[in-house]
Amino acid sequence: MINPTAKTGHNVTIKQGVVIGENVIIEDDVYIDYGCIIRDNVHIKKGSFIGARSILGEYLMDFYKYKINRVHPLIIGENSLIRTENVIYGDSVIGENFQSGHKVTIRENTKIGDNVRVGTLSDIQGYCEIGNYVGIHSNVHIGQKSKINDYVWIFPYVVLTNDPTPPSEVMLGVTIDSFAVIATGSIILPGVHICEDGFVGAGAVVNRDVPKEAVVVGNPAKEICSVSKIKNKLTGELVYPWRYTFKRGMPWEKSGYESWYSSLDIRGDE
Amino acid sequence: MINPTAKTGHNVTIKQGVVIGENVIIEDDVYIDYGCIIRDNVHIKKGSFIGARSILGEYLMDFYKYKINRVHPLIIGENSLIRTENVIYGDSVIGENFQSGHKVTIRENTKIGDNVRVGTLSDIQGYCEIGNYVGIHSNVHIGQKSKINDYVWIFPYVVLTNDPTPPSEVMLGVTIDSFAVIATGSIILPGVHICEDGFVGAGAVVNRDVPKEAVVVGNPAKEICSVSKIKNKLTGELVYPWRYTFKRGMPWEKSGYESWYSSLDIRGDE
Amino acid sequence: MINPTAKTGHNVTIKQGVVIGENVIIEDDVYIDYGCIIRDNVHIKKGSFIGARSILGEYLMDFYKYKINRVHPLIIGENSLIRTENVIYGDSVIGENFQSGHKVTIRENTKIGDNVRVGTLSDIQGYCEIGNYVGIHSNVHIGQKSKINDYVWIFPYVVLTNDPTPPSEVMLGVTIDSFAVIATGSIILPGVHICEDGFVGAGAVVNRDVPKEAVVVGNPAKEICSVSKIKNKLTGELVYPWRYTFKRGMPWEKSGYESWYSSLDIRGDE
Repeated sequence: MINPTAKTGHNVTIKQGVVIGENVIIEDDVYIDYGCIIRDNVHIKKGSFIGARSILGEYLMDFYKYKINRVHPLIIGENSLIRTENVIYGDSVIGENFQSGHKVTIRENTKIGDNVRVGTLSDIQGYCEIGNYVGIHSNVHIGQKSKINDYVWIFPYVVLTNDPTPPSEVMLGVTIDSFAVIATGSIILPGVHICEDGFVGAGAVVNRDVPKEAVVVGNPAKEICSVSKIKNKLTGELVYPWRYTFKRGMPWEKSGYESWYSSLDIRGDE
Repeated sequence: MINPTAKTGHNVTIKQGVVIGENVIIEDDVYIDYGCIIRDNVHIKKGSFIGARSILGEYLMDFYKYKINRVHPLIIGENSLIRTENVIYGDSVIGENFQSGHKVTIRENTKIGDNVRVGTLSDIQGYCEIGNYVGIHSNVHIGQKSKINDYVWIFPYVVLTNDPTPPSEVMLGVTIDSFAVIATGSIILPGVHICEDGFVGAGAVVNRDVPKEAVVVGNPAKEICSVSKIKNKLTGELVYPWRYTFKRGMPWEKSGYESWYSSLDIRGDE
Repeated sequence: MINPTAKTGHNVTIKQGVVIGENVIIEDDVYIDYGCIIRDNVHIKKGSFIGARSILGEYLMDFYKYKINRVHPLIIGENSLIRTENVIYGDSVIGENFQSGHKVTIRENTKIGDNVRVGTLSDIQGYCEIGNYVGIHSNVHIGQKSKINDYVWIFPYVVLTNDPTPPSEVMLGVTIDSFAVIATGSIILPGVHICEDGFVGAGAVVNRDVPKEAVVVGNPAKEICSVSKIKNKLTGELVYPWRYTFKRGMPWEKSGYESWYSSLDIRGDE
């Protein structure tokens, strides 16, 4: 069931039961596990692994409405690892070294940068932008019009909403600036802006902007202190902003944040 | 793997890897995508689309217990759009123009009216009733014995519970009256009754009944005002009860709620 | 697609599209439904049912990293009922009479005792221990390093966390002692210890230990009373500790907790 228009590179593995549509490009060293459905106009870059029964280039509404499958390309970046049963729509671009858990949904018009991780059961509703080195854990819901900058962490069961007066036709997405941390189970209300290094505590319901380096907790969320006051429970050390104390998987993994940052050529871009 | 007892209408599309059991009826213009499992006694009405690898007529407990598959019919209404990997049990009836997201679970003894939408990952536990024009978003959990009337909106990660003293054998379902809105991430405790036009704010934990047109927020939820006080953040306009300001997909889409309502023949039923 | 090294017992049913890897043992009376993927070194004990398209013995990270599938055995206990689309990793052991809902994920290094139930969409992150007769409902998230003792109940959308200063390399799991009840949608913060018969109310955010028989509610959670004060809303009867009033599916189902407990041979182990 591989459409003859498909272009496949060297050392490509395609396991039993895979369906491949029109105009699909599969680069070198790609592995496509059992039963995947690759719909039309999908481009999988080299070295990527597509987990069993994932569906790439999933149909948009026009397919159901007009019974024609318009061109809605999907690009999966190099060396991505997509676990089983992901559904990723067309009209989306995913950067390199992407990693996803099981049963992730990513809808149309999603732009994801490089080195992003998305956990099991997370649901990215489309029409949104996610930067580089963003860590999204399990079962996170990213509403349409969300904008997530680089180096943001979002923990399980967080919901980014977008409708200020549900049900309505208005969509006010959430914006999260670099280095912010959104802890487990918090709900971010429509249009809220979480500034750089902001920290939203577990279970918070955030209905107003979170200033730079502020910690907010509770329902409704209230600012309680600066992140610079939070200590590691075990060692007593100050741990935030986290970029100075945490390195794993970050571009400053080897040198530490400060040396890495001072070595950047184009600091003006930061 | 199509059982010879299956009756299929005109212009039916059945893609590769579909399994169809006994006494299945597939009406005209139905599309069944790759790898669906249609178990016994399922009736799919005309014009419906069944997304890849959905399982319709899923086994009830008696199958596992007695190794026999008793008759548990499932009816899917006309022009329904069921996205991929839904699991829908027998002994359920779903009305026309139903739309579901991906990976939705609907268990036995669920009655769903017409024009209902259910989002990705939602889990309807069965033994419950859902009216017409109900919008259930992603990852909503509808406990057994829930009763949801027409024109209700339920937003992501809402949970309707039913056990007042867990674990127990008692089930007190939640009742939601017409036009009520349950915002993201709220938890409705067992036996709670949310009255017409009631509004539950995001993240609320609701342990008592919500009066008609009341707004409740917080943990535990407290009544803070009438819905008639809520303004659109951008325009300053009053927006609730929402039926007067929102039309998309509603039966009053063309005329507005008031003209539509005054044109109804049988107003006594409302 | 059944590897010739597989050993299968008597009266084994293997439906269409099943893939079976190396060194798999399938005991008598096992039923494997359509499209399951049984990877290498999986042992399914007698009488178990594996629901359609479940994946057992799922790959660990070394498979993606080194392209070799090291030995990571998975054992599924006797008479287990695993519903559709579960993903269960290698290096795990699941006891007898296990029951799971749909689309459950269980990662590596999970030890699950006997008579455990896990609901639809729950996500057990691995490196954790779950005792006997534990009831985990739908959409529960069990973080790594969690330790759940016997006879614990965890209701929908509960999250057990583990990172005290996210993101960090520290993992402080949650410990839940026997007979504790964690109600819907509560979040248990890293390192928290919930003692025997403790009760966490719905939507609680628990940031400190819960004493024996204490009831905690709210965000942040506060102790409000002893479980011995909670009455059944309908009958007015006192219902906790629940082991004295609830029997279904418990080892004391026939005799009641007290007679059962006094009949135990080895009370010193309790």
